[in-house]
Amino acid sequence: MDKLNLSKHISSSFNDEIDEVLNHVMAMGGLIEQQLNNALMAIANADVELAQRVIDTDLKVNDWELQIDKECTSIIVKRQPAASDLRLIMAIMKTIADLERIGDETRRIARVALESFNSEQQDLLVNLDNLGRHVGQMLHDVLDAFARMDVETAVAVHQEDKKVDREYEAITRQLMTYMIEDPRSIPKIMNVLWSARSLERIGDRCKNLAEYIIFFVKGKVVRHSSAEKLEQEARS
Amino acid sequence: MDKLNLSKHISSSFNDEIDEVLNHVMAMGGLIEQQLNNALMAIANADVELAQRVIDTDLKVNDWELQIDKECTSIIVKRQPAASDLRLIMAIMKTIADLERIGDETRRIARVALESFNSEQQDLLVNLDNLGRHVGQMLHDVLDAFARMDVETAVAVHQEDKKVDREYEAITRQLMTYMIEDPRSIPKIMNVLWSARSLERIGDRCKNLAEYIIFFVKGKVVRHSSAEKLEQEARS
Repeated sequence: MDKLNLSKHISSSFNDEIDEVLNHVMAMGGLIEQQLNNALMAIANADVELAQRVIDTDLKVNDWELQIDKECTSIIVKRQPAASDLRLIMAIMKTIADLERIGDETRRIARVALESFNSEQQDLLVNLDNLGRHVGQMLHDVLDAFARMDVETAVAVHQEDKKVDREYEAITRQLMTYMIEDPRSIPKIMNVLWSARSLERIGDRCKNLAEYIIFFVKGKVVRHSSAEKLEQEARS
Repeated sequence: MDKLNLSKHISSSFNDEIDEVLNHVMAMGGLIEQQLNNALMAIANADVELAQRVIDTDLKVNDWELQIDKECTSIIVKRQPAASDLRLIMAIMKTIADLERIGDETRRIARVALESFNSEQQDLLVNLDNLGRHVGQMLHDVLDAFARMDVETAVAVHQEDKKVDREYEAITRQLMTYMIEDPRSIPKIMNVLWSARSLERIGDRCKNLAEYIIFFVKGKVVRHSSAEKLEQEARS
């Protein structure tokens, strides 16, 4: 995998195996990006068939997690990696766990497309779509950062999550106002709210993925650190 | 740690170290159980101070995760465990990741106690409390199963989650009905709904913890398996 400029970090002994695992992580990441895009498209076009495809495809995401997890365990047993090699395996195992959970969220988001909305309600979906695109960009960027083990991009993704949180809060307020005005719409609008929440959670998980990149490259655990501390550690 | 009947699974070489790590996992689990109980008590008694303590204590949960994660990595490097020893380390690392996320959910639940509710709304909180106790029992049982590496209890916890899901759905319907009848209450009741959702998610995570126990004892990955398949694998 030429895109992965990782060779300098990895002892040559297990280079091929790790390369294959990294290829699989990128394939899993690509599939999940596609799942999120399809879920958003299904909502925008009220495409029930596409939504169902997203829901069904989540099984493939789960299979990737199990397979990559197995590959990582096998590398630990066979290669007994230490230092940065082990750190890479650990970062990969944590990454795929979060990717799998992002997959679960895309499945939940797709369910909104199974509802039908009137034209006024469809206006509310525009903001959900905007939030979705924002989060989709974060996911794209963090996977790109993973492929290049690029700490700067990881830090940028981490910071982006604050904006996603604000956007999510604005949508929540808007949806609650709508429900207060039209209480009969509550069950339907609740589904939109759950979707917005799922998108916000995907943003959180992209933040986790960014932390694993910094953990691998810098050898520093930045989980649960403040934004300032994280930036400082990543750039030192 | 006498409670942990693990010695037969573990090569004597790293027995002491693993024993310490397991002690730490149990301490982390105990803290999270307490966090959940305190969050529920804070809601039942409208105890703002206790709720704030739950929110603040989440930092300790995060510290446990970081520490145990480090201990596990260090054991892998020093001991190069294989087979069931490595499986135990992997199970522990996955367990603490889920425990930390359960900690996050308890913090979210506690926030409900910061709101004030009228007497009619307090009736709605009774069902939230029941769901909370149900999930609390699942958490207690799965931690107990972990301490004894007891597959039967793990399977029982796994099956219990279906009941929690049904209870959660009933609460959701009840809360939505209440919002439809009294739209001005929507922002407040939404917080109760988020809490119910957090409890449901804790149930899901207890299911994950049960799967890690089966993975360790039986050497079989049962993630993403159907309930029937899981039961079959666990008992074979």
